[in-house]
Amino acid sequence: MNSSVPYLLAILGEGVVPPSTMVCHGDDLGLLRGDGVFDATRIVTTEDGTSRIDHLEEHLSRFARSIAGIDGPTPDMDSWHRLIEDAARNWRVPGEATLKLVYTNGREVVPGPPRGFLIIAPLSETHMEEREGINVLCLSRGVTSDAFADAPWLLGGVKTLSYAVNVAALRYAKSQGADDVIFTSTEGYLLEGPTSGLVVKANDALWTTPTGTTGILSSITVNTVFEAADDNGVKTATRLMRRDEVLRAQGAWLLSSIRGVVPILSIDGHPAPHDDEMTHRLRVWAGFEE
Amino acid sequence: MNSSVPYLLAILGEGVVPPSTMVCHGDDLGLLRGDGVFDATRIVTTEDGTSRIDHLEEHLSRFARSIAGIDGPTPDMDSWHRLIEDAARNWRVPGEATLKLVYTNGREVVPGPPRGFLIIAPLSETHMEEREGINVLCLSRGVTSDAFADAPWLLGGVKTLSYAVNVAALRYAKSQGADDVIFTSTEGYLLEGPTSGLVVKANDALWTTPTGTTGILSSITVNTVFEAADDNGVKTATRLMRRDEVLRAQGAWLLSSIRGVVPILSIDGHPAPHDDEMTHRLRVWAGFEE
Repeated sequence: MNSSVPYLLAILGEGVVPPSTMVCHGDDLGLLRGDGVFDATRIVTTEDGTSRIDHLEEHLSRFARSIAGIDGPTPDMDSWHRLIEDAARNWRVPGEATLKLVYTNGREVVPGPPRGFLIIAPLSETHMEEREGINVLCLSRGVTSDAFADAPWLLGGVKTLSYAVNVAALRYAKSQGADDVIFTSTEGYLLEGPTSGLVVKANDALWTTPTGTTGILSSITVNTVFEAADDNGVKTATRLMRRDEVLRAQGAWLLSSIRGVVPILSIDGHPAPHDDEMTHRLRVWAGFEE
Repeated sequence: MNSSVPYLLAILGEGVVPPSTMVCHGDDLGLLRGDGVFDATRIVTTEDGTSRIDHLEEHLSRFARSIAGIDGPTPDMDSWHRLIEDAARNWRVPGEATLKLVYTNGREVVPGPPRGFLIIAPLSETHMEEREGINVLCLSRGVTSDAFADAPWLLGGVKTLSYAVNVAALRYAKSQGADDVIFTSTEGYLLEGPTSGLVVKANDALWTTPTGTTGILSSITVNTVFEAADDNGVKTATRLMRRDEVLRAQGAWLLSSIRGVVPILSIDGHPAPHDDEMTHRLRVWAGFEE
């Protein structure tokens, strides 16, 4: 391992292990089939090495729902809690990092139990820089906006390891000089980013896109800021929106647990509306600014 | 490892290794993101331990195209050939087995090169039994039939490791008492199986579904039998078909490199047409019968 990149690895049932440890067999279903799930949140560590983890219970709940979504057994939450505590205690790198929980459905050839592990690694420079604002491309996800109705096999709202299209879309956007992507349905509705949820300010209210039949992942960061907005008298609602509506709105952001609240600067090269005051409020509500 | 399941593992740059060897790090992109590809074919081993591999060059070519599809570097085919030869020499289990080639785009946190390995394992009992005939369910893939036009980020025709929906659809079918799935577009066209291509006999010709804008994987087995059909004076063509057309046709099969040519017995509980003579011809052409 390149010792210049701090990186912590802990395996369920084993604890913290050297980061060079290999974690899965050649026939692991998570590897061969993307038949596994993950969840990720931010861990913030002070100079004295004390860490706090953002919204851990919400992420663990979503992780358990994802495992159920791929017909995995009910996870032993006590074991996960102990593993996470053990990992957080061993992570002493000051600053912000990503805590990623990973579950796979076991092995394909040789019988074996499901596999669970976690990694902690510092936020990338790219994520840090993108917090200032991003230029996004709308890219078709190829699906209709109601594709996930009565189709549990499409794994709507399940955070699987099968993210090849998500990373390919991000690579495509970067090859075109953009920073990020908003996936669209075949009818032209904006859905979500490959690793983020969409929030729009319009008519002095905050809007996000509906989960459920759209297959959109329930964003813990969006849910968090919407609860705070409600508490602060800002109206919130869900709606499917088209690009041109968003361009005419009062502000647009992509939200995620690691990168936080990122203002969208442009969509497909068209300047997006911005609202610096709301950016600040959203960041405070999400726990990314004081 | 459970020693009752024979299983061979070989890693690119290392050669054949003990099957209990772990193959990837916790931050491997193939594992965390399904950001990798695979290909699979059949290896047949005689009682004296000599093996032949079906259509190896075609599978290696498709594997290389898949790697290019996720922006991986051009693979060193000499190294892959040597690894495969080494593996085949070491595989002495008489009968049919699956040879699976796997590539991942390297690591996410710690810089590292792409990862390549292969596994060989005997055909499962289920695959053997399913060769006699299968009952299939049509399940929506949520996509329109032209979704992949001008959308390279959707990875149409790329055999990625992101197969969570494919395995979830198979699990769903089995939970409903069926054996396999035909994915449909939102317009109701039959596309392909999760791990197989569709062939239909109608008007005394053989039909399969078009690749390209449908995102359907180019099936090496379908291509092989279509070439043989052309040579034998049986007309072949591609077309999008609906379920009811297939139910009124003369025969329907799901084809794949490992399981071979499998007659479809029923679709959504409706009896499918069958043509035992064509089943035999297709199997001969595909190399699964003499």
